[in-house]
Amino acid sequence: MDDIQAFARQVFLSQPFSLLIGAELVSVGDGNAQIALDIQAQHKQQHGFVHGGVVSYLADNAITFAGGLALDGNALTVEFKLNYLRPALGSRLIAQAQARSAGKRIAVCQCEVHVVQGETQKLCALAQGTVVLSS
Amino acid sequence: MDDIQAFARQVFLSQPFSLLIGAELVSVGDGNAQIALDIQAQHKQQHGFVHGGVVSYLADNAITFAGGLALDGNALTVEFKLNYLRPALGSRLIAQAQARSAGKRIAVCQCEVHVVQGETQKLCALAQGTVVLSS
Amino acid sequence: MDDIQAFARQVFLSQPFSLLIGAELVSVGDGNAQIALDIQAQHKQQHGFVHGGVVSYLADNAITFAGGLALDGNALTVEFKLNYLRPALGSRLIAQAQARSAGKRIAVCQCEVHVVQGETQKLCALAQGTVVLSS
Amino acid sequence: MDDIQAFARQVFLSQPFSLLIGAELVSVGDGNAQIALDIQAQHKQQHGFVHGGVVSYLADNAITFAGGLALDGNALTVEFKLNYLRPALGSRLIAQAQARSAGKRIAVCQCEVHVVQGETQKLCALAQGTVVLSS
Repeated sequence: MDDIQAFARQVFLSQPFSLLIGAELVSVGDGNAQIALDIQAQHKQQHGFVHGGVVSYLADNAITFAGGLALDGNALTVEFKLNYLRPALGSRLIAQAQARSAGKRIAVCQCEVHVVQGETQKLCALAQGTVVLSS
Repeated sequence: MDDIQAFARQVFLSQPFSLLIGAELVSVGDGNAQIALDIQAQHKQQHGFVHGGVVSYLADNAITFAGGLALDGNALTVEFKLNYLRPALGSRLIAQAQARSAGKRIAVCQCEVHVVQGETQKLCALAQGTVVLSS
Repeated sequence: MDDIQAFARQVFLSQPFSLLIGAELVSVGDGNAQIALDIQAQHKQQHGFVHGGVVSYLADNAITFAGGLALDGNALTVEFKLNYLRPALGSRLIAQAQARSAGKRIAVCQCEVHVVQGETQKLCALAQGTVVLSS
Repeated sequence: MDDIQAFARQVFLSQPFSLLIGAELVSVGDGNAQIALDIQAQHKQQHGFVHGGVVSYLADNAITFAGGLALDGNALTVEFKLNYLRPALGSRLIAQAQARSAGKRIAVCQCEVHVVQGETQKLCALAQGTVVLSS
């Protein structure tokens, strides 16, 4: 598991877009991954909420890592679907994804995105996606 | 229509995340919108392709604008689904969204994302989403 | 709650398609619903598994009831997404949906579909959908 | 192509659920398929519209055939997403699906469902799904 953690972190740190956004891979496990970021001005849209593109990036990427860990190999997300439940307003966004099913080549993952508001966390998005082995 | 174009551009330019990514609102019309960006190193993932989060940002945002224009008001995307068709490798990404249906409060939009490779464009993602009036 | 149960059952029994398929509304609660059916020959596709259309009917309908109960009114599903996780092979299908979020007009629901195989149940589909008040 | 048409029809006719619903495979081509049905009382929900489960069955099945034809082999739909655009009220439902992308193992298809109302057809649902080779 230490090796997987290390490998996942190495992959994450070699994603320039994740660094541009300021996201961090908080934790990975067997078929799950958590990616988070501290909300900054650059993440927002015209109403001062976090832009949907930031929320969907977090969900998409967390799903890819969770699926890749479940399939134990290089994997890519072929599709995902996301519902925005409430405006993302707060100090930090946390995307937690887990594989709900994994065969030889395909994993299906779900992801919850919470926003931290002071002492509480509120669910602000739900996603579901399909990850396949790329090799 | 000039007013709508101007209003849409003003909204777009007040999205800090769109500016961070380097996207531009290329054109808007009655129920359609095109958002594009020149691919740069900061947009990539670990294999040198554009990160899925960039592609989904473009689709999500184009869908929101297309839906808002179709509904003629402040609108937000409540959900979308996206399929990645091929790795996004090239010089520019172009997301073209159009409303396929618009009622009083809900519009359903589809979006195609093409990547420019030299003289050709290749379809690299398809998305479909739901936009609702927010007021 | 007895009234809601009774009302939901009455709605369900006035759906000719649900009767054609042979489904039953097993239970409803505050923002959740379970719909099930005993698998018969007429539910199958060419390989002897339950047809995807039966699985998606169950998920779609359970989501509609869960969302309607969460919104406390006449509701309709505007969209849903479903992943088939494994072939549905067994004696009974059970779709359990619950609202994960409910505002004034929109509820977002998730649904798990299990297939009963002897003493065990296996997860065979996951769905997520959006329900809106229709009046 | 005659062989493919014949094979597709044979598969369709060996789906008991398609026969229960009363659907017909109208046409198939290279990466596309049309499935339709004449609307009958048994297809309806509590308001007299066609039940969403019928619409989604048509879209799901048309996507599976379109994807299988694009991949040229036994295929199954691993996921799909569907938006209901308007109540399906009329005499006949027609689902037309086409593959928008096909690799060695994965095809992505879109499907439009129209309802025939007298002399006109109205778009009543849009779907998008992923089909994979099963062997």
